[in-house]
Amino acid sequence: MEGKTVLRLWSAALLVILPLMTKSLENGLARTPPMGWLAWERFRCNTDCVNDPDNCISERLFMQMSDLLVSEGYAAVGYEYINVDDCYLAKTRDAQGRLQPDPERFPSGMRALSNYVRFDFNDSEVKIEWVGLEDLLTFDLLQVHAKGLKFGIYEDYGNYTCAGYPGILGHLEADANTFADWAVDYVKLDGCYSHPVDMDRGYPEFGYYLNQTGRPMMYSCSWPVYQIYSGIEPNFTAIKGACNLWRNFDDIQDSWQSIQTIIDYYGENQDAIVPNAGPGHWNDPDMLIVGNFGLSFEQSKSQFALWAIWASPLLMSVDLRTIKPDYKAILQNRKIIAVNQDILGIQGRRIYKDRGIEIWARPITPVVRADFSYAIVFLNRRTDGTPSEVSVINRELGLTHEAGYRVEDLYTNKDYGILSPDDKITVDVNPSGCVMLRFTVASAFQKQLI
Amino acid sequence: MEGKTVLRLWSAALLVILPLMTKSLENGLARTPPMGWLAWERFRCNTDCVNDPDNCISERLFMQMSDLLVSEGYAAVGYEYINVDDCYLAKTRDAQGRLQPDPERFPSGMRALSNYVRFDFNDSEVKIEWVGLEDLLTFDLLQVHAKGLKFGIYEDYGNYTCAGYPGILGHLEADANTFADWAVDYVKLDGCYSHPVDMDRGYPEFGYYLNQTGRPMMYSCSWPVYQIYSGIEPNFTAIKGACNLWRNFDDIQDSWQSIQTIIDYYGENQDAIVPNAGPGHWNDPDMLIVGNFGLSFEQSKSQFALWAIWASPLLMSVDLRTIKPDYKAILQNRKIIAVNQDILGIQGRRIYKDRGIEIWARPITPVVRADFSYAIVFLNRRTDGTPSEVSVINRELGLTHEAGYRVEDLYTNKDYGILSPDDKITVDVNPSGCVMLRFTVASAFQKQLI
Repeated sequence: MEGKTVLRLWSAALLVILPLMTKSLENGLARTPPMGWLAWERFRCNTDCVNDPDNCISERLFMQMSDLLVSEGYAAVGYEYINVDDCYLAKTRDAQGRLQPDPERFPSGMRALSNYVRFDFNDSEVKIEWVGLEDLLTFDLLQVHAKGLKFGIYEDYGNYTCAGYPGILGHLEADANTFADWAVDYVKLDGCYSHPVDMDRGYPEFGYYLNQTGRPMMYSCSWPVYQIYSGIEPNFTAIKGACNLWRNFDDIQDSWQSIQTIIDYYGENQDAIVPNAGPGHWNDPDMLIVGNFGLSFEQSKSQFALWAIWASPLLMSVDLRTIKPDYKAILQNRKIIAVNQDILGIQGRRIYKDRGIEIWARPITPVVRADFSYAIVFLNRRTDGTPSEVSVINRELGLTHEAGYRVEDLYTNKDYGILSPDDKITVDVNPSGCVMLRFTVASAFQKQLI
Repeated sequence: MEGKTVLRLWSAALLVILPLMTKSLENGLARTPPMGWLAWERFRCNTDCVNDPDNCISERLFMQMSDLLVSEGYAAVGYEYINVDDCYLAKTRDAQGRLQPDPERFPSGMRALSNYVRFDFNDSEVKIEWVGLEDLLTFDLLQVHAKGLKFGIYEDYGNYTCAGYPGILGHLEADANTFADWAVDYVKLDGCYSHPVDMDRGYPEFGYYLNQTGRPMMYSCSWPVYQIYSGIEPNFTAIKGACNLWRNFDDIQDSWQSIQTIIDYYGENQDAIVPNAGPGHWNDPDMLIVGNFGLSFEQSKSQFALWAIWASPLLMSVDLRTIKPDYKAILQNRKIIAVNQDILGIQGRRIYKDRGIEIWARPITPVVRADFSYAIVFLNRRTDGTPSEVSVINRELGLTHEAGYRVEDLYTNKDYGILSPDDKITVDVNPSGCVMLRFTVASAFQKQLI
């Protein structure tokens, strides 16, 4: 019982303190890449709740996913956002011009859904219909405590969303306030039906109104990708100042082919992309599709490893009700999540590419005397059936710390012991798979011990 | 003990009777498409038994696979051939000009390996070094009985095999006799380092020498694919008369992309391809890659379903030591194997293709009053994350038998009951996956019962 009380006090304190942090240009969020669940890639714009009630975009789907995020252990390893995407809105605003969800599919309203996502209801009889700022007091009396999850939503800086629902153009301040009223923690702002030239003004303006609400809301922008499509060079200084994360390339689809185009884009444009990443502001190569229909187990490991190298948001878009254990284990790999969430926030780079073999490297903590530790991914893009052996001297990978590195395979947990810069490492990499190693700098003291 | 005696008698009788059947132009084999295991796609030309003893092309690998074919239940559902591919030979012929295997990797010799594949050795102390026609007597004394497997081998109608080992050109009769001496049951003859124009003479000539040995050997030809690559229109009447199966398209690789190119080739050229298939002679779209690195579970189901629709040889190229249970279950699906092995031997066709959805249909037994039963595959080539619903009136699929059809899903075993030609069937098809249904013609009597 004491544990519960502590949680309640903490959640109450959070809502009091956090608004104080949001008056500056930075909203204080996303010190490491956000982690959570996002509906789009897997569930799309399925609004047919009559024939397909289990898979349509409805409050029930998001309630189920939030429950599973906790009960299946995803929350414990860091996934915290439950994010609605397109197709939740009614086709028109209400009589007061406010956004409103589809009444058939979200009968309880968005504030109630946010409450469901963010709080645990001990009494299963409790409905989720309360709205308003008095929630917290009500919840406290009912012994409702924080789940530790946060609630995300979707909109579009244009006249319509991509699927044709009302966009925010002409309603920026009102809609920011609506999202605060709905207790939203994360806003993804798409860019359909708007002019890319206008985005340099519009995205920061909406960010300003989000901050003006006093509620901290993470801000995901599609600003650069629409500009790149239109041949406009994005102003990443402005984008980094206004957005916590941003899309810069195509929507991901359920195929290895799609992931390969993203890998190539991030590799070929890394000189422009990598410097923009850092605490508070991240490149977003789009959702994780691990556990869906199109990736093999090896390909799934490759996606997760590269998203960690890139310091990418980890937004799973998968049916958590049916995902198989092997794939769930990839998504819950704590050692790889630790690489993704490394506090330095330095995005990794492709350092080798030849005949289908790529090597990717990311500097991470701990740092000893200006020498980084590293996460290294050996990726095999070949399809010729049998694993490829890759051998390299550690020094060739930039691993020059003279006291050496403790080396570990982050998927198999194989311990290579302490290796020096002149040692050779050899790995067998499966077709369309990868080997991911962590090289942790050894201090002279550690080396002596071993 | 009686069971064993019967098996021994049966295996002895087989070798006496079968030679009598091989004097005609047709060798009597492959009345249904061959099923077995073939090394190439998964194990390639890995000859490094020093550093990779578990995966190199060696007698040990084929012995292991033959053991697993039986112990893991593959033989029980119909897989019977264990087929060696390229890279087993020594780089030179022996002093008498005969082919010889690499002595380091196949120290027991090919006849001994064939014996191992084809027979069980009760006494584990028994070595596999006997060679010669006296094997059978020896085995009988040692209580060795038939495993029910058969042994396949690879060669090339050219100066060299594709990997540079000795080809058969100039040695056709001698090499056919060598294969008979080795107790070979299946020969795959590749076409590297030879001129495609010469194949119209050479492939039948080698087939003639195979038949002349008196030992029935299935004959797999690469004849048409090399001619197609060279712009020569193959003479399929001749090919059907000389070969039990033939390759007509690219080597398969470990990717869904590779399978999609094969699907497109078989769909777009079906008017030319389909009529060539029938009992004794089959189109070969290359190996099954189910259980390897590049296919998702859904994609694996799609490959297996289409290979059944096409009456294709089912030659698994996968590591049977490590394949996961889900994928093994696909390869051992008895209902889909029954479609593949249907005695009519009619290859199926693509009957619908629009916006990423394809429908494939194969006429199968039972046949009632000139109406076929059908296997139907609904294939989803889309990658947009969520299953696609496909609805069709049975009559539109050509299912016009007025007494209706008993309909069953061959992967989920869902029973749809008896459906009439005017009933509508609706299936949800996963991205890059399929739904495979069997429509079994109902007799009037059957319908009355239900």
